Amino acid sequence: MARWEGNTRARLERAALDLFAEQGYDRTTVAQIAKRAGLTERSFYRWFPDKREVLFGGEELEQCFVAAIEAAPEGADPLTMLMAAFAKAPEVIRPREFLRERSAVIAANPPLLERELIKLSTLSEALTAALERRGIEPRTARLATDAGLAILRQTGRRWMSDENADHTQLLADSAADLLAVLTANTPNASTNGNGRRS
Amino acid sequence: MARWEGNTRARLERAALDLFAEQGYDRTTVAQIAKRAGLTERSFYRWFPDKREVLFGGEELEQCFVAAIEAAPEGADPLTMLMAAFAKAPEVIRPREFLRERSAVIAANPPLLERELIKLSTLSEALTAALERRGIEPRTARLATDAGLAILRQTGRRWMSDENADHTQLLADSAADLLAVLTANTPNASTNGNGRRS
Repeated sequence: MARWEGNTRARLERAALDLFAEQGYDRTTVAQIAKRAGLTERSFYRWFPDKREVLFGGEELEQCFVAAIEAAPEGADPLTMLMAAFAKAPEVIRPREFLRERSAVIAANPPLLERELIKLSTLSEALTAALERRGIEPRTARLATDAGLAILRQTGRRWMSDENADHTQLLADSAADLLAVLTANTPNASTNGNGRRS
Repeated sequence: MARWEGNTRARLERAALDLFAEQGYDRTTVAQIAKRAGLTERSFYRWFPDKREVLFGGEELEQCFVAAIEAAPEGADPLTMLMAAFAKAPEVIRPREFLRERSAVIAANPPLLERELIKLSTLSEALTAALERRGIEPRTARLATDAGLAILRQTGRRWMSDENADHTQLLADSAADLLAVLTANTPNASTNGNGRRS
């Protein structure tokens, strides 16, 4: 019997992350990643097209979100559809500890940072297209996606840094914070009497 | 007397854009761009570090925005500071026709799309840092920047496609549209009685 497939992929991700952290992205080869994971190069390429892709986990997140938008109730507004989709994230994302290490490695290696920006842009396009298929006007779909991704990124940062935080609660909190920013109801706003700075 | 410097740069940008559109980004060399502009390769490298940089106009936009944030009134809320900064954009951006062609060329050439994403990310970091220097709490600065850039991108798309549109008015309109998305007050929202879809 073959090993559980998810386990194979997880071992490759873990091996790549450790090697990137130890010796840098540029100096790490696919052969090294496969060896560290106790697998063949051929196994690596069954899961990932190249070294740069290994930390980006396929299209799982995108597929999960798009499916949720497709399943949203008729007549829902676009941000509500996106928030319902984002609430599914914990079902597919990796553990906090892995994501924290991953963030540090990506920030330190420009080719990975580029890949992350491209992935985020692709996700953004996919969400906008999914909203449009649900009848949302293109310009609104685009704005809603931008707002939604701002909320999701804030949620991700807070979720990674606090072991006890609940993803769904953070989504709601971050949405409220974004609304506060847009209505200038922020701690730094001049309308806030106790927010005076020296 | 040397030619006006801005003119030299504009000629290189124009030549590069035309060549990228005619024969693709990959098949265009710096030598060809310089020749088309009636300049030497050395002149090219006085303005740009490489071929990929030529359509991204240095750090003009970033410097303009950061300076405006630094000059914003004491106690202003972060989104107001960003909007005041973005209102300066027409002073540094290229003509609509150039930007429309530029958008098409970038969309068609992955290396340029990557560079654009990186530039946007760098701009985002710079704006967040500028807001933090103005006393805005980091998390709020990040959310305000994300919201601001969503507004700016929407404004840019509308401004490019409508010759008569006013940039400042579009900024205000796009901000109102983003707020409407966040409060679910959109044409597609279920609470809007006349927005029923078949």
